[in-house]
Amino acid sequence: MVKPMIAKLESNREILLKKSNLSNRLYSKSGFGKLDKNGNLRLKPLEAAYLLENKKIGLENMDFQSFFEHCIKTHPRFEIKYLVFRDLRKRGYLLEILEDSLFDFKIKGKQIKNQYITISSERDELSMRKILSFLKGSNIFLAAIVDEEGDITYYSFSDINLKGGIRKNVFPRGEGILLGDRVAIFEKNCAKELLEKEFFGKTFSEGTQLSFIEAAYLLEKKIIDIIDPKEDKKIRFKEFIKLARKTQPDIDYRLRVYRDLKERGLIIKTGFKFGTHFRVYKNDPDLHHAEYLVDVVNEDFVTTWSFLSKSVRLAHSVKKEMVFAIINNKHIGYIRVSWMRI
Amino acid sequence: MVKPMIAKLESNREILLKKSNLSNRLYSKSGFGKLDKNGNLRLKPLEAAYLLENKKIGLENMDFQSFFEHCIKTHPRFEIKYLVFRDLRKRGYLLEILEDSLFDFKIKGKQIKNQYITISSERDELSMRKILSFLKGSNIFLAAIVDEEGDITYYSFSDINLKGGIRKNVFPRGEGILLGDRVAIFEKNCAKELLEKEFFGKTFSEGTQLSFIEAAYLLEKKIIDIIDPKEDKKIRFKEFIKLARKTQPDIDYRLRVYRDLKERGLIIKTGFKFGTHFRVYKNDPDLHHAEYLVDVVNEDFVTTWSFLSKSVRLAHSVKKEMVFAIINNKHIGYIRVSWMRI
Repeated sequence: MVKPMIAKLESNREILLKKSNLSNRLYSKSGFGKLDKNGNLRLKPLEAAYLLENKKIGLENMDFQSFFEHCIKTHPRFEIKYLVFRDLRKRGYLLEILEDSLFDFKIKGKQIKNQYITISSERDELSMRKILSFLKGSNIFLAAIVDEEGDITYYSFSDINLKGGIRKNVFPRGEGILLGDRVAIFEKNCAKELLEKEFFGKTFSEGTQLSFIEAAYLLEKKIIDIIDPKEDKKIRFKEFIKLARKTQPDIDYRLRVYRDLKERGLIIKTGFKFGTHFRVYKNDPDLHHAEYLVDVVNEDFVTTWSFLSKSVRLAHSVKKEMVFAIINNKHIGYIRVSWMRI
Repeated sequence: MVKPMIAKLESNREILLKKSNLSNRLYSKSGFGKLDKNGNLRLKPLEAAYLLENKKIGLENMDFQSFFEHCIKTHPRFEIKYLVFRDLRKRGYLLEILEDSLFDFKIKGKQIKNQYITISSERDELSMRKILSFLKGSNIFLAAIVDEEGDITYYSFSDINLKGGIRKNVFPRGEGILLGDRVAIFEKNCAKELLEKEFFGKTFSEGTQLSFIEAAYLLEKKIIDIIDPKEDKKIRFKEFIKLARKTQPDIDYRLRVYRDLKERGLIIKTGFKFGTHFRVYKNDPDLHHAEYLVDVVNEDFVTTWSFLSKSVRLAHSVKKEMVFAIINNKHIGYIRVSWMRI
């Protein structure tokens, strides 16, 4: 075996490989380091560690193990950054190591649409506010999550503009009866129109049963009245929401997003079977599968990467897209998250 | 159309249908009600509502709507019980309506192994302690969950005895180096044996990287020592756990279950990609897929049905079984939960 060329640790931030055929090849063919004015190759610690692990270079007085231990002491998050750097290099991506940036790496060239990469350990918290700030930096990016075994999962985050094909309809005014946690419509015609035109409700007796959120939407739009049979009187919208909050404390949040999705021409049904708030159809649910699973979260929401992992993997395996509707006082932003096998 | 036979509301708990061809047929063929000494059929409100909705009987002075409103006022949880009763009857199951029982219904006959049914609204809390008490009543049962749209999802709960095919091995003593959130083993032979015999770790440099839980297990078993390179000294088991708790606060719980699963001859890897604690193999992970996804929870754990729904649906769609390892001070109980399309 040929002994590898010996590089020199110039500082904690820089490793120098003297000008040579190897240094030129590493620079121009493999995208490592920067050339200085003397034509020597200046490598960053991540690059040097990678070349060292793969025996492309040697290092004065240090083997891979001692260099790695040294870097862990001198560079925050070195270990997880290295695992991602190594994984992406092995997959053939050339990487720019970013400093003073929101992101950790940028993929060189145009092999991939998602060029910006942020790295987290599975133990780091996942904050929606942070995701939004990343999306301000780049409207599509990759999060590389290092799990406890050092395996890496890649998630793509991007803004998404949801649009469906359902046109606005006019409905005859109907009467709903509050029955426990749902609202029943016993008039056949009204029930039929609600179901056939915009897929509200589910067959019940000769009419339909509406969920609280459907009923709240239709009440607000003055398409139905709701009667409380216990007191035999109409319930106003505000009273109804107050009542619905008892079983569904987040109905205000959900209704804001429900209303917005209706405006966008989509059909919204419960996502309970998938453990999400909504499943959303672009078109007739009888002829199409739901395209999206949507969770409504406040921009203050902080969770674990494991939570995201479960949602996104499930969406993937049922061939839907996972979307987070992130709300604040004024605005709803829709973020698509996909599992990437890059 | 023939007018249906008129039954009579005898009390809030009983509806009487006079002896007739219809009453006999409903009793003997369709499994409704009980015959009294005069041969009249005595129906429970759920049964009467079902027959009323389907126009098999009529009721004095009441239509389906007014009878349903009446029952909601007089019977707790009538509405969700009715939706499940109706769904199961439509699917061809004959039901015994239980009173003073842990469960709500029992399926008559032997069409199905899961005969006992408990009913919840998706808004009800899901408590592990309650699940354990149901399993004391019947070691397999069905939970019927009514979602906000009145759709019903069935989950089967049962005890499971986990067993794998991995035999105990002897290992040479090895040395692990603490590197950030993992432990690296740089000695080739030791790394190779750990990986090949019991699938510990993942290749790193010429050795292997272990997760904290793997390292804790191997340290406790005295198979490895762990060196902290910052202080160049061995870390004792208790110190290591203390350190691991900083990034993984629940490592004590997880390690208890990890250890128990190892005793049972299984291979345990992280379930991060599925948002669960572990994925578990009965045999060689290189030749088989993981059979189980395992979450470790305390018996005090209380969650939402939506949480369960997501986990179980994901396990189903990746062809694994969802298992909860429920722990208390003394004991670990394994519960399998499956999504049933009955």
